[in-house]
Amino acid sequence: MIEVSEAVAAVLREASPFEPQAILLPDALGLVLAEDIHADADSPPFDKSLVDGFALRLADCATSLPVIEIVSAGQIPTRVLDQPAAIQIMTGAPLPVGADVVVPVEFTSSQADAAGQTLVSIPNKVASWKPGTNILRQGMSTRSGDLVVAAGSELRPQELGALAEWGRALVLARRRPRVAVLATGDELVPIEQTPGPGQIRNSNESMLCAQIRRAGADPVPLGIARDERAHLRQRIDVGLQADVLVLSGGVSMGDKDFVPSELSAAGVRQVFHKVNVKPGKPVWFGVLENSPTARTLVFGLPGNPVSSMVCFELFVRPALRRLMGFSLAELTRVKARLTQPHTTKGERPTYQPARLEWHDGGPTVTAVPWVGSSDLRATVAANSMALFSIGDQTYEAGSIIEVIAW
Amino acid sequence: MIEVSEAVAAVLREASPFEPQAILLPDALGLVLAEDIHADADSPPFDKSLVDGFALRLADCATSLPVIEIVSAGQIPTRVLDQPAAIQIMTGAPLPVGADVVVPVEFTSSQADAAGQTLVSIPNKVASWKPGTNILRQGMSTRSGDLVVAAGSELRPQELGALAEWGRALVLARRRPRVAVLATGDELVPIEQTPGPGQIRNSNESMLCAQIRRAGADPVPLGIARDERAHLRQRIDVGLQADVLVLSGGVSMGDKDFVPSELSAAGVRQVFHKVNVKPGKPVWFGVLENSPTARTLVFGLPGNPVSSMVCFELFVRPALRRLMGFSLAELTRVKARLTQPHTTKGERPTYQPARLEWHDGGPTVTAVPWVGSSDLRATVAANSMALFSIGDQTYEAGSIIEVIAW
Repeated sequence: MIEVSEAVAAVLREASPFEPQAILLPDALGLVLAEDIHADADSPPFDKSLVDGFALRLADCATSLPVIEIVSAGQIPTRVLDQPAAIQIMTGAPLPVGADVVVPVEFTSSQADAAGQTLVSIPNKVASWKPGTNILRQGMSTRSGDLVVAAGSELRPQELGALAEWGRALVLARRRPRVAVLATGDELVPIEQTPGPGQIRNSNESMLCAQIRRAGADPVPLGIARDERAHLRQRIDVGLQADVLVLSGGVSMGDKDFVPSELSAAGVRQVFHKVNVKPGKPVWFGVLENSPTARTLVFGLPGNPVSSMVCFELFVRPALRRLMGFSLAELTRVKARLTQPHTTKGERPTYQPARLEWHDGGPTVTAVPWVGSSDLRATVAANSMALFSIGDQTYEAGSIIEVIAW
Repeated sequence: MIEVSEAVAAVLREASPFEPQAILLPDALGLVLAEDIHADADSPPFDKSLVDGFALRLADCATSLPVIEIVSAGQIPTRVLDQPAAIQIMTGAPLPVGADVVVPVEFTSSQADAAGQTLVSIPNKVASWKPGTNILRQGMSTRSGDLVVAAGSELRPQELGALAEWGRALVLARRRPRVAVLATGDELVPIEQTPGPGQIRNSNESMLCAQIRRAGADPVPLGIARDERAHLRQRIDVGLQADVLVLSGGVSMGDKDFVPSELSAAGVRQVFHKVNVKPGKPVWFGVLENSPTARTLVFGLPGNPVSSMVCFELFVRPALRRLMGFSLAELTRVKARLTQPHTTKGERPTYQPARLEWHDGGPTVTAVPWVGSSDLRATVAANSMALFSIGDQTYEAGSIIEVIAW
């Protein structure tokens, strides 16, 4: 039986980031960029106005000026300011040559003279403005060739905006893993059915598919496999077509726990079976080498739902993050202050459903009442898991505990 | 011109939670539950074994016992333990009547006697175990009728698991808003095109659609509307079919800023125009009453991408959260310690791109260099916005600042 840290390290040794591929920008949200993106032009690409107003030379400002042109955004000025005059200009439009300031329209008044020429009055105070007021100079934000978004970045809304600005309708990124989910056990019935004596509903599929989606991957639900070798093997063979196969149940010491042996028969190499963790001790992990470059990672999670949920977070989520190319694949552990005493009976290190709260003075954590690995209701009251070490002991209120947010 | 807090309050006054509707469980991740879910049965539904092993009476344990039945998960025992004997039982299977302990298989050894009867040896130490060891009693986790998930809860993976356990293939929840996105401006070209003189690419659509998705809603990109009244109006009419229409550009003081007047012409009632905020002053908000129960919320965001992004977070995201039924619609503000001095020229309260970091001793924040509302690159370096008040002042390192995480 190995420790959690050894198990996570073993998983990450077997999980290599996917090869980068071209992905349409709208599909790339949440993925990891696999190329450096450099600006293909200055930003802004020209000196531009930050306001709707009148472009002019500061030297000309304390007077009434003829408006010799109107430039909307998307147009370019055809006139230059080489004499006292103003050019009306809209936010985002290119600055006329010669202008060194833009006076916002709300500071001015305009009228037509007898010949129909529009004249604009500029207030005196503008004379004291600095050259460049209300102008964003070409390249002020970014120079052509600058690194805009670095390889390894997670693509958030602002990165997608920046990639769009620099014309990347396709980007090289690492795709979402396809993760098959197969619940096993003769006691399971679909959630639409009323369980008969000795039966329970298959809650793991709904929960695991949601965890997979939250991790940024695509779930492929495969339903329920019966505790019968030929049927289980057929379902496993389907699941092995995915990048990752997550099974639940069938990994303990029971006479009908066929999952490890049927995975072996399907060519999956066992990496570990059993981890020193509560809940989740029987967890199984192995790898199918489909080709020198393609492999399926296979996780046999214990069947009780809290065990499945915790083992997904501890072992499957880091694997998915590594496949997707996140530089930090391991879960983040927060140190939080325990709000209430907590007594453990710790034959194994325990990941206890808990409530993590953020305060200005630092995080706190409160253990949630929990009757064991089938108690999904405890997880509903929780938003994290608190780590308590091995050994029978009482943690006093105020103790600092490691916590992993869900 | 109103303050941000007044504008948010005005938005939330106009946004009412959607009517609940029946939603398939796999589609409900991230939605808000609109009914109390009570357990339809005890959990566990029967006394069950927590291990693979042998069920027996403690009184009989220090001896070799005949194994009179094998009960797998999904089966029910047919025999009762009314004499010294053991029943082999798998994890999750119902406990036989009479048994008060389950001895894990790994603590035992089995052999067949001359008549072919399997005998199991139970170690002496079991005699000191408490009744109930390795048994989870019926209803220990949840009693039939107990409230399992309360109305108003966000449906996370564990809630979906609990709803599945209690047979809810359909749940009453509030659906995802459909949010149309329409960028306006003659200067805009699609991201696949190389901008000509005076032109820039439409980065807002990619960014806003990603923000909408991150908020849990469904984006409907409508492309670019030209600064031409009939064309703009036609695109607005399409966008008004959605629950929310988000426009960018066309809301300033320019001659071709037709968005407010065309929205009015389309029947949209203006609620506010201009907010005392930087970036984003020209932001516009209004409502189209489609019927007494259905309305479209319409946001005219400024066209510069950082203004669009910030105004989405400040005004659109709370609206979407309210429509989806989140009890807390407003953005969470964190108090963080400034790591470096920061000088503001504050004619308006400023939401400055910033880097928020979590430490055991509490959060810190660092302002990111930023040349203004078209500088998307600053947002790429940021993960939050720090709020600096009105007035020219220097905030010393160590000052406590309000920050909103993106």
